[in-house]
Amino acid sequence: MSRLFPDSVRRLLEELQKLPTIGPKSAQRLMLHLLEAPLEDVRALSVAITDMRDKVIPCPVCGNLSEIGPCAICLDASRDLSQICVVEEPIDLIAIERAHDFGGVYHVLGGRISPLDGILPEDLSVDSLIERIQDSDAGIREIILATNTDVEGDATAGYLSDLLHGKFPGLSVTRIATGLPIGAELDYADQVTLIKALQGRRKV
Amino acid sequence: MSRLFPDSVRRLLEELQKLPTIGPKSAQRLMLHLLEAPLEDVRALSVAITDMRDKVIPCPVCGNLSEIGPCAICLDASRDLSQICVVEEPIDLIAIERAHDFGGVYHVLGGRISPLDGILPEDLSVDSLIERIQDSDAGIREIILATNTDVEGDATAGYLSDLLHGKFPGLSVTRIATGLPIGAELDYADQVTLIKALQGRRKV
Repeated sequence: MSRLFPDSVRRLLEELQKLPTIGPKSAQRLMLHLLEAPLEDVRALSVAITDMRDKVIPCPVCGNLSEIGPCAICLDASRDLSQICVVEEPIDLIAIERAHDFGGVYHVLGGRISPLDGILPEDLSVDSLIERIQDSDAGIREIILATNTDVEGDATAGYLSDLLHGKFPGLSVTRIATGLPIGAELDYADQVTLIKALQGRRKV
Repeated sequence: MSRLFPDSVRRLLEELQKLPTIGPKSAQRLMLHLLEAPLEDVRALSVAITDMRDKVIPCPVCGNLSEIGPCAICLDASRDLSQICVVEEPIDLIAIERAHDFGGVYHVLGGRISPLDGILPEDLSVDSLIERIQDSDAGIREIILATNTDVEGDATAGYLSDLLHGKFPGLSVTRIATGLPIGAELDYADQVTLIKALQGRRKV
């Protein structure tokens, strides 16, 4: 394969294949697209990649993607500062924003506790969450723990729950619900989800 | 969504979504990857994109991707210059090369005849194919028509077949075989493929 392509094409294919979900065939399709796309689009993509990387910094308040100073969500006066939703990564925040239902603000941990990968609480933005709660002018009404519902996300939520209850006895700390996704058939649900859905049953 | 992201992120997402098969969610995943990837990889990708575009030209002989002068296949002394495989696009050439079975050379048409899209024979590299056959020192033994097996690819092959038989009465012109793909179940085959497979049956 290496002899098949000119050097510049081979280098582009190599770089494209470092991207997630891009294998050799996808890389070739992207390369051929970039070869025929309008030149201004190709240059714009190239510039946008480095430009994003040069400009984007974590929001100093919540850790969300930002450029200079606090992010758009933290600056949005219509949002409820007394309700903080704690997520692992910016992508989780984006997912929740897409649902257009949450009117509070966020706190991005930058990962989840995972001792096997060497990620401990001190590697996450836990201290800044504590400070935010302590320093809040508005007073914090609720902390929603929206880490992933896998083992490590659950462990992280458990750790934060214990920590927050210890430090702020009156604070309401909640965890996003687990159960069957909407539209699911019981037959196809995995056992753990089904057990959680049964345990979490509510009066109707 | 537009308010959710800083400007530089939004611009990158827009550019990424111009790529084939990249929707809003894939674009976000790629963006977040680029945000955390090693800086040298990000810069290398950015440079590789414009570099490829600046350097790659069609091979002056066959139309394959090349940088300066003929492509690696045309320059490969071990290839049989008397057998030319005619394909629509470089991606088709790549697909055939991946099969590691063909030892001849190629001719890339740059598309297929499609009057509805305004693509006529004169928009394709047909003249240069004729010239190649006329000017060949080695003498051309066979032209393999490997355009796609859809309606337009078949029409293009039919057009070329008529043209070549008219101009070079003794030349062997062949079409790649159609039929059931290897490993297929008859039950799942579409009707047209099955008819072609029956019509193309061979003594065993």
